[in-house]
Amino acid sequence: MRKNGQEVQHRGGDCPAKDYVDPPPMPLIDGEELGRWSFYRAIIAEFVASLLFLYVTVGTVIGYKASTDPERVSAAAASCGGVGVLGIAWAFGGMIFILVYCTAGISGGHINPAVTFGLLVARKVSLVRAVFYMAAQCLGATCGVALVKSFQRTYFFRYGGGANSLSPGYSTGTGLAAEIIGTFVLVYTVFSATDPKRNARDSHVPVLAPLPIGFAVFLVHLATIPITGTGINPARSIGSAIVFNKGKIWDEQWIFWVGPFLGAVIAAAYHQYILRAGAVKALGSFQSGSHV
Amino acid sequence: MRKNGQEVQHRGGDCPAKDYVDPPPMPLIDGEELGRWSFYRAIIAEFVASLLFLYVTVGTVIGYKASTDPERVSAAAASCGGVGVLGIAWAFGGMIFILVYCTAGISGGHINPAVTFGLLVARKVSLVRAVFYMAAQCLGATCGVALVKSFQRTYFFRYGGGANSLSPGYSTGTGLAAEIIGTFVLVYTVFSATDPKRNARDSHVPVLAPLPIGFAVFLVHLATIPITGTGINPARSIGSAIVFNKGKIWDEQWIFWVGPFLGAVIAAAYHQYILRAGAVKALGSFQSGSHV
Amino acid sequence: MRKNGQEVQHRGGDCPAKDYVDPPPMPLIDGEELGRWSFYRAIIAEFVASLLFLYVTVGTVIGYKASTDPERVSAAAASCGGVGVLGIAWAFGGMIFILVYCTAGISGGHINPAVTFGLLVARKVSLVRAVFYMAAQCLGATCGVALVKSFQRTYFFRYGGGANSLSPGYSTGTGLAAEIIGTFVLVYTVFSATDPKRNARDSHVPVLAPLPIGFAVFLVHLATIPITGTGINPARSIGSAIVFNKGKIWDEQWIFWVGPFLGAVIAAAYHQYILRAGAVKALGSFQSGSHV
Amino acid sequence: MRKNGQEVQHRGGDCPAKDYVDPPPMPLIDGEELGRWSFYRAIIAEFVASLLFLYVTVGTVIGYKASTDPERVSAAAASCGGVGVLGIAWAFGGMIFILVYCTAGISGGHINPAVTFGLLVARKVSLVRAVFYMAAQCLGATCGVALVKSFQRTYFFRYGGGANSLSPGYSTGTGLAAEIIGTFVLVYTVFSATDPKRNARDSHVPVLAPLPIGFAVFLVHLATIPITGTGINPARSIGSAIVFNKGKIWDEQWIFWVGPFLGAVIAAAYHQYILRAGAVKALGSFQSGSHV
Repeated sequence: MRKNGQEVQHRGGDCPAKDYVDPPPMPLIDGEELGRWSFYRAIIAEFVASLLFLYVTVGTVIGYKASTDPERVSAAAASCGGVGVLGIAWAFGGMIFILVYCTAGISGGHINPAVTFGLLVARKVSLVRAVFYMAAQCLGATCGVALVKSFQRTYFFRYGGGANSLSPGYSTGTGLAAEIIGTFVLVYTVFSATDPKRNARDSHVPVLAPLPIGFAVFLVHLATIPITGTGINPARSIGSAIVFNKGKIWDEQWIFWVGPFLGAVIAAAYHQYILRAGAVKALGSFQSGSHV
Repeated sequence: MRKNGQEVQHRGGDCPAKDYVDPPPMPLIDGEELGRWSFYRAIIAEFVASLLFLYVTVGTVIGYKASTDPERVSAAAASCGGVGVLGIAWAFGGMIFILVYCTAGISGGHINPAVTFGLLVARKVSLVRAVFYMAAQCLGATCGVALVKSFQRTYFFRYGGGANSLSPGYSTGTGLAAEIIGTFVLVYTVFSATDPKRNARDSHVPVLAPLPIGFAVFLVHLATIPITGTGINPARSIGSAIVFNKGKIWDEQWIFWVGPFLGAVIAAAYHQYILRAGAVKALGSFQSGSHV
Repeated sequence: MRKNGQEVQHRGGDCPAKDYVDPPPMPLIDGEELGRWSFYRAIIAEFVASLLFLYVTVGTVIGYKASTDPERVSAAAASCGGVGVLGIAWAFGGMIFILVYCTAGISGGHINPAVTFGLLVARKVSLVRAVFYMAAQCLGATCGVALVKSFQRTYFFRYGGGANSLSPGYSTGTGLAAEIIGTFVLVYTVFSATDPKRNARDSHVPVLAPLPIGFAVFLVHLATIPITGTGINPARSIGSAIVFNKGKIWDEQWIFWVGPFLGAVIAAAYHQYILRAGAVKALGSFQSGSHV
Repeated sequence: MRKNGQEVQHRGGDCPAKDYVDPPPMPLIDGEELGRWSFYRAIIAEFVASLLFLYVTVGTVIGYKASTDPERVSAAAASCGGVGVLGIAWAFGGMIFILVYCTAGISGGHINPAVTFGLLVARKVSLVRAVFYMAAQCLGATCGVALVKSFQRTYFFRYGGGANSLSPGYSTGTGLAAEIIGTFVLVYTVFSATDPKRNARDSHVPVLAPLPIGFAVFLVHLATIPITGTGINPARSIGSAIVFNKGKIWDEQWIFWVGPFLGAVIAAAYHQYILRAGAVKALGSFQSGSHV
């Protein structure tokens, strides 16, 4: 009971008072959680969500390219026969919206190793949980892409398997920077949406949380599909690389891990040290006023 | 009772005051509900909603194809003269959003025999109600497609009547699997959105319920329109088949019943036995901890 | 004071108890409201909202057609140089979303004589208010279209001025029926979103009200732009007809008044007599049970 | 106080308990806020949000144009190879949605000098804060566009750098009027969403606030991209002009400052004097009744 009482205040603590309490940092290794069914259930949920995410999104990419291949269809259909790049961006953003909505209460709804890494750096999840989540996400993503491949064998390889790679004309540095900033936008939105300080102040904020997170993914895809196809999710990148497994895919895979992880760390630092006024506490040179 | 009380505190524990109680399984046959006006009103609402659903969506499909037929319009219009496949996906997803929003309080807002079947399997609706709902949905869908046919007689048959069928190049197994997974995504979202356990914990969840359900339909259409035209709703498939009534439509109709019903059952099982920790209770091998 | 107290319970009455009270029918002529500033402010708000609605939507239509005119632009731009029919549907639906959101608290956010007529028939607004609203809506719409014309004189007439008319190949009966059903979808959504019974039961419902109403407009446009250009709003139809004032526009104008008004009446009747169980009360043959 | 109490009951009267108090006008110069960390944090947040806004949106514009350049890609891709004008409009509107969502609690989420100016005129922010915000917004926007330029050097200049300018065939007056009305739509939505009077009455309103504000930006882009490329945000216009720095960009820059500032002032006046019944108080000729 005691334990539960404490936990209420740690985790949101909406009810008792107007104030909020930051949860203490998660321990790196929390032996206790390994003995709980909820831990394994969360891992299953991350696996299933990552599988569905890649199945729907890569399926949309392949279906779109098949619908607009001038060798297969009429000229008219070739120019507009599919859902378009806009439809692909919707597929990625929309799936994150519904999957975060469905799994938020089970696993926190990460569905992305970069998000898990950002939350690990901010000490919101334990190291053990982070490692298990990332493994489940990568495995789920691989299975999702494998499903698309088994459904659309002919088109899968012809249209690149939905794998991420640098487009011609863009340097490695540009690709890396695009992944860093894109992931920053996503993880910054995740931190904003789940900040216990905000939730105490604006009780309405969590209502919309999965929607802006999904929109962040949608918008980053609009901007960076022409550059890298948009990773900002190492599970999505490695899953499609494993199944596609051709050409220069593996040479560039590091971009889709280093970029998102760096972007997530910068977003975590921005949130902790600037927006949450950690900088002030460190420097002690300002006094927090009523607007903090 | 004790047990329930404990469980509430395990799961998030936002607000000790609010409890939830899983409703008892619905009886298969509930004689009493046959005597209530609310029962018939719900059936009327399902009929009307299914009619409007098919009227708007199949109308959009036919209108799109008429707007981009190179024999009817200029080359420029042929390539982009209509709302596009993206617009068709929005029509299906958007209609489910507003119809679930409008009928949720009247009939539960199923508008889809696969959803009704999933809820029947999970014992959320009685068998009698499920049978009446499915009949009303199929009848309403047929009337909706018939309206489109009467409005657009010329184009209706020329453009396939919005009926579901396997696209060339896809095997029966692929079509069936696409329907299973697509319906899984939808019914999994429905269960997540309407889970009484979640609703007690996250009081904000129902606010958004119709929106992610609509998005799930939208996203599945993005991914599987190129494969089967996307069924995931047997009423939609049989309604358009009855009115179109040509070619190979009837040979493949079973795919659009077996697939969605299987997908719904799997989603119900995933929700009950994995996410709701039913598995634990059955095995008794783990102890529910504070993160359950 | 007494009066105010009563009114609280009439208008929503969320607070005092768990129950709801249907407001009494509005009198046809309410002399008192003519003496209030709030009445005139509501009329101004309807005027401004209708002006902005037509300005943005017809501006989008004309801009789209100018961007895709093969005589003005390259072939590539001609096929996809604008926002597309999908963008036009978003313009209509999206504007209704934000304008209902902004004016709901001032005037009720009708912005459409068919909505006002439906609410008049259901005795939610007085006759006097309805007449003033409709006049303001039509005047505002005319001014909005006139603004577009003054900005884009060359293109305005070349591209049809955004006026509604039957597309070639569709009969008058089809156009009328499309307007009736389209308006039914809209007004049915409005009634569902604002029903005091629902609001008492599902406290979350009003949160989303402007969003499904906007989506309803968006979806009807997807389905019926190919048939009539989509009216479902007599102010929108007459405003563009007055400014365009050419050809067969006036011959068909009646369709865009009779259709929407009939659709609104049917939606009001469906809501009052079926969904609100008015039928039961009239017949007395069923007993309202716990699901009503 | 008495007066306020009365007024609450006049306006809807949902909940007699909850009152609202209009905050007193902000002083033009508030020396105290300069000593608070929260002030500088807000400026940093405006800078970062403006940077991300321009990075994603101009990146989308350049990527779209590169994807549809007939000299670079096949004819089919040239007509539909990118996200389209609709995708560009989504990029602008969607980014405002998520950035307002993320920064509303930190800085108020202006991300636009015209919004800041409107709130200054309405005395919601101090002059000092307004000046610092505008500087941060313009600087952030410039950095965001510079990032796009450094990533896509070749395409940046070829495709106009995302800078605003009058399209051929439109007069200066039309461009100015389009900017005035477009900004009016945006700032009117901002005032509606953040009105303390509304928020007291409709407790649900703030839940959706960032969404209609983002939609307003989206819709104005649909309508006015063909005319000016759509400014309605002087930081966006000057940032892209500074980085592009070619041709007639500077000659027309005034349009993108005068237009938005005028539109914001008109929206502030409409809200204060018409919708908030300020007119009544000034004239004293009407008596506020129960519908105010």
